[in-house]
Amino acid sequence: MIYTVTLNTAIDRVIYIDGILSRKKNNKVKRTFYDIGGKATHVSVVLSRLRIPNIATGFVGEKNKEKLMQLLEEKGVACDFIAQAGCPTRETLVILDDAGEGSFMITEKGFSVHGDTLEKLRRKLSEKVTEGDFAVFAGSLPPGLDGDQYRELLQAAAEKGGKLILDTTGAQLRSAIRLKPYAIKPNEDEFQELVGKRLNTPDEYASEIKKLLQAGIEYVIVTLGKKGSLVGHGDEVYRVLPPKVKEVNDTGCGDVFVGGFVAGLHQRFPLEKMIRFATALSASKAEQPESSAFSPERAEQLEGEVVIRRLPA
Amino acid sequence: MIYTVTLNTAIDRVIYIDGILSRKKNNKVKRTFYDIGGKATHVSVVLSRLRIPNIATGFVGEKNKEKLMQLLEEKGVACDFIAQAGCPTRETLVILDDAGEGSFMITEKGFSVHGDTLEKLRRKLSEKVTEGDFAVFAGSLPPGLDGDQYRELLQAAAEKGGKLILDTTGAQLRSAIRLKPYAIKPNEDEFQELVGKRLNTPDEYASEIKKLLQAGIEYVIVTLGKKGSLVGHGDEVYRVLPPKVKEVNDTGCGDVFVGGFVAGLHQRFPLEKMIRFATALSASKAEQPESSAFSPERAEQLEGEVVIRRLPA
Repeated sequence: MIYTVTLNTAIDRVIYIDGILSRKKNNKVKRTFYDIGGKATHVSVVLSRLRIPNIATGFVGEKNKEKLMQLLEEKGVACDFIAQAGCPTRETLVILDDAGEGSFMITEKGFSVHGDTLEKLRRKLSEKVTEGDFAVFAGSLPPGLDGDQYRELLQAAAEKGGKLILDTTGAQLRSAIRLKPYAIKPNEDEFQELVGKRLNTPDEYASEIKKLLQAGIEYVIVTLGKKGSLVGHGDEVYRVLPPKVKEVNDTGCGDVFVGGFVAGLHQRFPLEKMIRFATALSASKAEQPESSAFSPERAEQLEGEVVIRRLPA
Repeated sequence: MIYTVTLNTAIDRVIYIDGILSRKKNNKVKRTFYDIGGKATHVSVVLSRLRIPNIATGFVGEKNKEKLMQLLEEKGVACDFIAQAGCPTRETLVILDDAGEGSFMITEKGFSVHGDTLEKLRRKLSEKVTEGDFAVFAGSLPPGLDGDQYRELLQAAAEKGGKLILDTTGAQLRSAIRLKPYAIKPNEDEFQELVGKRLNTPDEYASEIKKLLQAGIEYVIVTLGKKGSLVGHGDEVYRVLPPKVKEVNDTGCGDVFVGGFVAGLHQRFPLEKMIRFATALSASKAEQPESSAFSPERAEQLEGEVVIRRLPA
């Protein structure tokens, strides 16, 4: 089974307004709807869309839990969250106007996770995640959860042979590295922060990626936004150039990439096929206005255009 | 009794963010709270703060009704609303950042009022509002309510001798004029739209105000923002200059003015005292950052600074 773990779940409230958002005027709502927020839950949506069984878990605030569960169930995602009583799941406002210059995102911190809530999730992961399973941890930590507690959760998911796939940053990522996760997916800045060095060329990246591979991480993926990615596996590092698409909205591309990558692992794709699939799927997302939209059909057309080169050149 | 009637109630969700609201970044919430939206409910808050008995009525969406009732009860307002099942009361987003250049207000239209909901309010007004009562109608119409239906509600409130005080605009105000309300309070633009003329001087305004007084409206008040107001009553029109204050936030000043005015009517203040009181109360609001904050103590200090001149000069 694939488990996605969202520790700081969110519900996106997407608001389209008429005209350009301005101060001191009545900005009128054209259309508003709720969408799933929280990185790992998005990965679940991608997997479910690809018909790959998975379970979304993590923490939710009990007050508006039903809203999030409903959104996930509409997308075919099976849920098994730990709810903390008396707390709301945070809402992220995503405001879009007619300027076409990107959205305004307004985020709350989320509720503070109690010790017993944490323990419930630790126990669940320890019981459920077994040999051959994948556990995808993605997104930020909620208030009240420190690096040690985060590592305890990762350990619980790994202790019976679960494979950790981490899309996280900063101190969290650094502290998780010691557990030798199966895969990590930082972006350029996050990777440079992780290795504590300014890196300028693909070869410089490749050399640092190889060190992590040698330390026991199976997949080290550094995403470069619209420039593609660097993928390290075994003894090799590859420079991956994405297909050229007309970018409409790149929000959510990273989550689609992770979903495609995990889908590839689950289906035991050969490395090259897996890279092509995840990259093309992510590119198909960039062509769409909605944050959680992507097209497996379009990805199939785009796969052939993905360029993969071994490094150093 | 004083009844305030809000046909398009709203709950303000006030959000303070860190830094300047910008696109394509994570704007973090510093502080967020709910406040009362909807003009007539604000008038109720002013009256209750001045310890003047009043009842807030109108339409609310049943889904989040409790939130609004709680906010009103915290301010000591007695509520007697008609709730429409299955609908949410609209939420207005008020976003404030560190720029100090005014807020971003994002408004929804509100739910569409059904025929039976309308009929319930019509009956309530007809039964409750009697001789000597005031009925304050303020704010916009909800979707699904046309000018004729609006006038039916006004008629219901007036039929046993209730006095209508209207803070509304456009077609609504025009159609209400035929009922000879007790008082109207348009601003400059709204008044010019009402009389269908461009007005340039105080004397030109005075001449039009007098026509409405002669047609049977007891009080015609044209508010001029920070420039004060024109007040017509009996055979006279007065130019009212407000005290000089340091304006921090003028949102809500109009509602405080109406609240002060109705409080004055209720307490049978002489005209001059009533004008001084409402104007000073409104000025005390402008000195405060919050939309529903004002200070009766400060207003007392400011009353003497209000200048009242008879027109034409």
